[in-house]
Amino acid sequence: MDWKTQAKLKRESVTALIPKEWILDSIPSPSEQRDVTGDYIRKFLSDEEIEITETDAFEIVQNTSQGTWTAVEVTSAFCHRAAIAHQLTNCLHEIFFDDALSSAKRLDAHFSEHKKPMGPLHGLPISLKDQFHVRGVETTMGYVGWIGTFQGLKGTDKEKVFESEMVRELRQLGAVLFVKTSVPHTLMCGETVNNIIGYTWNPANRFLSSGGSSGGEGALIALRGSPVGFGTDIGGSIRIPAAFNGIFGLKPSSGRLPYEGMANSMDGQNSILSVVGPLATSIRSLRLVTKALLGAEPWMYDPLVLEMPWRVEQEERARDRKLVFGVYRDDGVVRPTPPVRRAIDHTAQRMRDLGHEVIEWTPPPHEDLYPITMKTFFFDGGQDVHSAFGLASETPSEQLLGMIGQEPGPQSTGSEIAAVNVTKREMQKAYLDYWNSTASQTPSKRMVDAIIAPVSQFPAARPNKYGHYGYTIWANLLDLTAVVIPVLRARKDIDVVDAGYKPRNDSDRQAYESYDPEVYDGAHVGLQLVGHRLQEEKMLAIAEYVHGALASGDVTA
Amino acid sequence: MDWKTQAKLKRESVTALIPKEWILDSIPSPSEQRDVTGDYIRKFLSDEEIEITETDAFEIVQNTSQGTWTAVEVTSAFCHRAAIAHQLTNCLHEIFFDDALSSAKRLDAHFSEHKKPMGPLHGLPISLKDQFHVRGVETTMGYVGWIGTFQGLKGTDKEKVFESEMVRELRQLGAVLFVKTSVPHTLMCGETVNNIIGYTWNPANRFLSSGGSSGGEGALIALRGSPVGFGTDIGGSIRIPAAFNGIFGLKPSSGRLPYEGMANSMDGQNSILSVVGPLATSIRSLRLVTKALLGAEPWMYDPLVLEMPWRVEQEERARDRKLVFGVYRDDGVVRPTPPVRRAIDHTAQRMRDLGHEVIEWTPPPHEDLYPITMKTFFFDGGQDVHSAFGLASETPSEQLLGMIGQEPGPQSTGSEIAAVNVTKREMQKAYLDYWNSTASQTPSKRMVDAIIAPVSQFPAARPNKYGHYGYTIWANLLDLTAVVIPVLRARKDIDVVDAGYKPRNDSDRQAYESYDPEVYDGAHVGLQLVGHRLQEEKMLAIAEYVHGALASGDVTA
Repeated sequence: MDWKTQAKLKRESVTALIPKEWILDSIPSPSEQRDVTGDYIRKFLSDEEIEITETDAFEIVQNTSQGTWTAVEVTSAFCHRAAIAHQLTNCLHEIFFDDALSSAKRLDAHFSEHKKPMGPLHGLPISLKDQFHVRGVETTMGYVGWIGTFQGLKGTDKEKVFESEMVRELRQLGAVLFVKTSVPHTLMCGETVNNIIGYTWNPANRFLSSGGSSGGEGALIALRGSPVGFGTDIGGSIRIPAAFNGIFGLKPSSGRLPYEGMANSMDGQNSILSVVGPLATSIRSLRLVTKALLGAEPWMYDPLVLEMPWRVEQEERARDRKLVFGVYRDDGVVRPTPPVRRAIDHTAQRMRDLGHEVIEWTPPPHEDLYPITMKTFFFDGGQDVHSAFGLASETPSEQLLGMIGQEPGPQSTGSEIAAVNVTKREMQKAYLDYWNSTASQTPSKRMVDAIIAPVSQFPAARPNKYGHYGYTIWANLLDLTAVVIPVLRARKDIDVVDAGYKPRNDSDRQAYESYDPEVYDGAHVGLQLVGHRLQEEKMLAIAEYVHGALASGDVTA
Repeated sequence: MDWKTQAKLKRESVTALIPKEWILDSIPSPSEQRDVTGDYIRKFLSDEEIEITETDAFEIVQNTSQGTWTAVEVTSAFCHRAAIAHQLTNCLHEIFFDDALSSAKRLDAHFSEHKKPMGPLHGLPISLKDQFHVRGVETTMGYVGWIGTFQGLKGTDKEKVFESEMVRELRQLGAVLFVKTSVPHTLMCGETVNNIIGYTWNPANRFLSSGGSSGGEGALIALRGSPVGFGTDIGGSIRIPAAFNGIFGLKPSSGRLPYEGMANSMDGQNSILSVVGPLATSIRSLRLVTKALLGAEPWMYDPLVLEMPWRVEQEERARDRKLVFGVYRDDGVVRPTPPVRRAIDHTAQRMRDLGHEVIEWTPPPHEDLYPITMKTFFFDGGQDVHSAFGLASETPSEQLLGMIGQEPGPQSTGSEIAAVNVTKREMQKAYLDYWNSTASQTPSKRMVDAIIAPVSQFPAARPNKYGHYGYTIWANLLDLTAVVIPVLRARKDIDVVDAGYKPRNDSDRQAYESYDPEVYDGAHVGLQLVGHRLQEEKMLAIAEYVHGALASGDVTA
């Protein structure tokens, strides 16, 4: 069977799992209905479903843990909304509503019997990027050649049985798993595109990308088809979809949350590690799941996780005091487009107005970090991803072809890889030294707590126009903690084109030319707050504060 | 100038830094004077020097911090004893007594003025393995080609000026640096041998090796020429010299203590990282320096150090309760020689007698871990070490030639390295799963706290007879915490040869044949207590307890 037929059958088999009564009669075009969030999607749902699905994870768990809501009613509502979300944006790779409802029933039975929740995530539906292995369904990661296999292999006895470590922990904590979300094949892309589901659209503006690689999570959660989900990030893949979709995301440092037993691209490249982290509709929801997972002592089951329980004192230290912010405006390679610049200015000004110290962030050039990161991603010359495409002889999307080429390139040698690792460490050291030096620039003599930085040059990418990942990859190379918050929405009346701007280079030209105020009108703009390595508690506390402060100010100022 | 002359001049230039009155008239041969510790070396020292140098680091700091001893008198005593130690065992690469005395004077002046110590290590002499860069002296790491260079390079402006990060911290904490100790060229050897200083002998038994690669530390500290020093360990290099010399050593997990700015072999190989850790004459001294360093917040200056302050609660949890020990007796490849087996039996029995739970440790075969580790060490085909030897066209020692060959081998590719990293992670996971499973074997249902394990197949290696590192490398591959304690000394009347034993393989035969009760009589036997990753506080507490319990029992039982 040719790969196109295989992809079509797979796509149809997933849609077939949606109950008939949830199938939409027709899907409007983006021109007919640009934004399918909010009122648009609500019309397919009951009032009770709307109430449940528009409650954040934190409050859902309060309700299920007190018996106000049953796990079954919560799960049913999210299954329904997720099914609609998928039809509108192509955001799902796997659907397992039946299994989810069975889990929910067991949780309800437990609650009835013991009058207390199973765990801190009792009855909470959680969506997972299609790198997680979950029993009963497969993991394709968007590769046609992975259909019917375990990571491309047949006869492993793991197919549809093996579960990733975090899946075990989430179940133990009381979560309900119900869908796996779409990714770009290879995962190495800021748009979500593959030959199985096609393209995952941004629900707030379907001319735009939902981002990637955790783009299915971004679209699904933005549509409130899931209250919280897990993505991964090796170059921006949690932060980009969070920012593009106006939701929150945490990119932890490596070793904080368990990646054990997940599918991946280029597995074994260990110079820059992909990390797993949550996306959600509130910061407190990100905190809830992160804290719950750490309570499951993942270091006892994942050898790469650090024994570092949730540190309450770190969040407390970040609260109730004046903060120091560094403002990172421009990486010198690609200038952020007007709505992104406005978001940065607005956030910095608001923090200044509130009495915090705000300085310009002028670190060692990020431009130098970029080539080292790219070398790292291609130590194997693209062998791994080319092999995966080769399994079904499928044609990569244009986005990927532009990155990986038609053929694998030369592999790096042990000496070359070692040299890259040394350079990387030297860059980390230089960055740390710069960070320490910021203490000399503030009246308080305290160094920067958080960097206010763009996530991307634009509010969201337009298809096949994402040529520069410089605004995200630096935090991966340096293994920093980052939290994304939504800041504002693009407005064609304010965020006008910089007439007469002379682009610096081809990437800059691409970003400049792709910015069209009409197309971008209404698009979300998120920013990231970046902190030191392994500062998840502190950065969530700061992000919560900053978002709260912005929400109470005028975001169109 | 040929490399032999260069090496000779370097050797002589170091010896020339020893004050004439400290030069020994003659050095006895090993047959004349096997053991040069204790009474033998004491005869060259004054009573005050003996008192100071036979005090452990913990108590030295108490004395210097209360003004009982001055930093200058402590430093002078250790300089004298180190100078003698070097003459007896060839344990030093660099001597900087003058700089040490200047530092000591400044510390004394500080104390006089402020009536309080400079820091938690006030006036404590600390020796450093010759990978640390210290101003005023060079770092050769035993390579002739590194003489007069900075890591083999000339004109870097770092020569004799640049200092490693930990050196900065130790000075800030009040320590006095005075010598750098010998290493095997390449560092990849359990004996300390190079073309500059020759061979570093075991002071308790000069027919034997002082171990390696931190062999100079082992010999120096055993002779009480230093109260505490820092070594590094990528395959056993802290633990082997600690065990061979009857002292204590901590191999932390990677990311705990700062390695930033140190010279290394194969720098940039980041699958198994070399770690830095202390060797000393007591556990409390290991704790003192580790805790002091963590108090200097090394994570703010070394990007690879984890923000993990000293955790008092972890040590406390390990005390005052019954422990669970796993006993690892034999890796199935090379059978430990009789004194090592006796040390294991004795320790296990003593713990049992004291009411602790003791089970056999039967993990996934260590045999499988060995080839993966070796592949990791040779990702570059030996290119780095061959280049270093090539700088001066020097001939590697026999020990090294046996390992690295005459020519570099083929390099691993990015894909091959990635595959090794995946296998390594799978092994770590399998080991962790096994560890968790031990809870089902104990009446208390608690899993093993510490593994009682050999450090080597013999009490110490005889020259060029160390062919199997299986007893140490597993803890590096798995990144576990290990603490070495001295347990007993070999006795020719008890530890007789296993007559009729049929060796399993060539390595086993080498170990079996090298064990001669006459040669080994009096040699130290140390063991390691191995715990989970990043359990430095807990493992030091357990090691302190076990050593105390053994010291109060009959070690020849």
